[in-house]
Amino acid sequence: MHIPQPYLLFLGDVTDPLSAKTAKGILQWRPQLCTGQLRLSKETVSLGIPDLSLTEAKELGAKTLVVGTANAGGFIPQTWLATLQKAIELGFNIASGMHQRLISFPALTKAANAHGNQLYDVRHYDLPLKVGTGKPRKGKRLLTVGTDCSVGKMYTSLALEKEMNRQGIHSQFCATGQTGILVSGTGISVDAVVADFISGAAEAISPDFTDHDWDVIEGQGSLLNPSFAGVSLGLLHGSQPDALVLCHEIGRAHIRHLPHMEVPSIRVTLEANQIAARLTNPKATVIGICLNTSSIGEKDALVLCQQWEQQYRLPVTDPVRFGVSTIVDKLHSI
Amino acid sequence: MHIPQPYLLFLGDVTDPLSAKTAKGILQWRPQLCTGQLRLSKETVSLGIPDLSLTEAKELGAKTLVVGTANAGGFIPQTWLATLQKAIELGFNIASGMHQRLISFPALTKAANAHGNQLYDVRHYDLPLKVGTGKPRKGKRLLTVGTDCSVGKMYTSLALEKEMNRQGIHSQFCATGQTGILVSGTGISVDAVVADFISGAAEAISPDFTDHDWDVIEGQGSLLNPSFAGVSLGLLHGSQPDALVLCHEIGRAHIRHLPHMEVPSIRVTLEANQIAARLTNPKATVIGICLNTSSIGEKDALVLCQQWEQQYRLPVTDPVRFGVSTIVDKLHSI
Repeated sequence: MHIPQPYLLFLGDVTDPLSAKTAKGILQWRPQLCTGQLRLSKETVSLGIPDLSLTEAKELGAKTLVVGTANAGGFIPQTWLATLQKAIELGFNIASGMHQRLISFPALTKAANAHGNQLYDVRHYDLPLKVGTGKPRKGKRLLTVGTDCSVGKMYTSLALEKEMNRQGIHSQFCATGQTGILVSGTGISVDAVVADFISGAAEAISPDFTDHDWDVIEGQGSLLNPSFAGVSLGLLHGSQPDALVLCHEIGRAHIRHLPHMEVPSIRVTLEANQIAARLTNPKATVIGICLNTSSIGEKDALVLCQQWEQQYRLPVTDPVRFGVSTIVDKLHSI
Repeated sequence: MHIPQPYLLFLGDVTDPLSAKTAKGILQWRPQLCTGQLRLSKETVSLGIPDLSLTEAKELGAKTLVVGTANAGGFIPQTWLATLQKAIELGFNIASGMHQRLISFPALTKAANAHGNQLYDVRHYDLPLKVGTGKPRKGKRLLTVGTDCSVGKMYTSLALEKEMNRQGIHSQFCATGQTGILVSGTGISVDAVVADFISGAAEAISPDFTDHDWDVIEGQGSLLNPSFAGVSLGLLHGSQPDALVLCHEIGRAHIRHLPHMEVPSIRVTLEANQIAARLTNPKATVIGICLNTSSIGEKDALVLCQQWEQQYRLPVTDPVRFGVSTIVDKLHSI
């Protein structure tokens, strides 16, 4: 799957800035792929890029309309369908990270077939996969892991890719979740594959390569999160990472959505991931820690990072506040 | 899902005894549910139970025709369809553990709808599931785990269920794979669910209970098998077992289908499972080891079990040769 680029970012009529997270992520990491935004009302959240009509975006070369919003149920509102259908008629492909599938709307499927365009439901995965084998593959791989879900693994992965390329280490981001897939235009939502194929999906996402230096694979969930650890372990085995970067949010009170589950310690998370990773790559090593320190002041965050660097003998940083160059420095020696 | 019982075991025209493994398993563990067998030719493997026509089985009360065979691709041969269709017309439900779905044959679906019967594709799972939570549930649970796939986890689980009930410990087998589901008439193929729902499936398979003593949950794969470890970890977390029984095959040269992967040691497997299980049940403990010793003589097997009992300070047995009473003895104190 390769979603044709560039994009027109569709924001529908969402007014909650958090609901536009996906579109914001795409714009932040791939501004060159975003021709503009399409909003259905003046009150709709704006990303601060040009408002374009479908026709204007088409003239600027946009190939795919990306549904860049999220809502609680993951439903595509009926009020958006006319716009989506018109986009298809004008030659756009549509890509969506919503739970409800574009292909579940017969009118959209019919229009896409009639006009030779594609509908990309990136949260789902229906294509055949092979079972993972754990066979060593060519190329070096870095995987982000975490103490929990939503602790900054995608952000960290994209920040690492950017900094590595800046330092002349040719790297490619490999997406494993819906926003990441929309950012990169390809990838597999590993949590959406049939359970038997988790590690096989990871192997397919980052196959043998010799044309660049590193694949940076977006992690999912946590080995210590009882809801999703199976996904995390399959992804870890299939990624066969040479390097792991551990992500953590400062101040998180408990595992996301599970008040009865403590967030695991850094030490426990680090060891669990390193031990499990060595099944398919005996050299796998945690090379740094990325923190989301947004709950504390910047000065305190800097002190904390320095303290933790002493404690864990690893580079520790907040990618948003302090960048990831200290971690990338470590990669030159791997 | 509850597959109506008793069964008529359908063997088609398979001549390789190994291909009839599923039917043999059902007959071995639930002989009282098997009215007889239906074979399409004289050369077909026999289970040593009465050959019955569809009509004869119906008269004996059989409610479901079970496709009790396996083949390489998991396909249902065209030559069986007439028999399956006739069965439906006579009022049978059909249950199958094959990869190819019964519901992929329009003629069978149509007939089942017309006659008000069900088609059970137990290797697949399409019903809605909830994400696992790791919340403690009522009741005690035992899970079988292993050094690899196909080391006797289902056999051990069913042997434990039988011996526990014999010793007055009221226990229920919980199936997580296709043969187990056909044996018990219910369950979920955990390796067939969407990856996000592995632990949720395990929680659904063995919910809160107070009406018996133990659930004995059939394990799948191995935490140390790079193809399927994600399934095993999700199942481990979702099962929140109080007791674990480790299964292993003596003489296995390498991980199944993966000549480049060593079979992990008992010690490593034991620790990996115990540590991971304690995320959702801090009391989780390995209470015994079940070996498949079929590659060595019975005398040697007995000596080996005794040596390993010293080495691991746990009951060690071959369930086929020596039963599982020494392990069940340990359960009285949990």
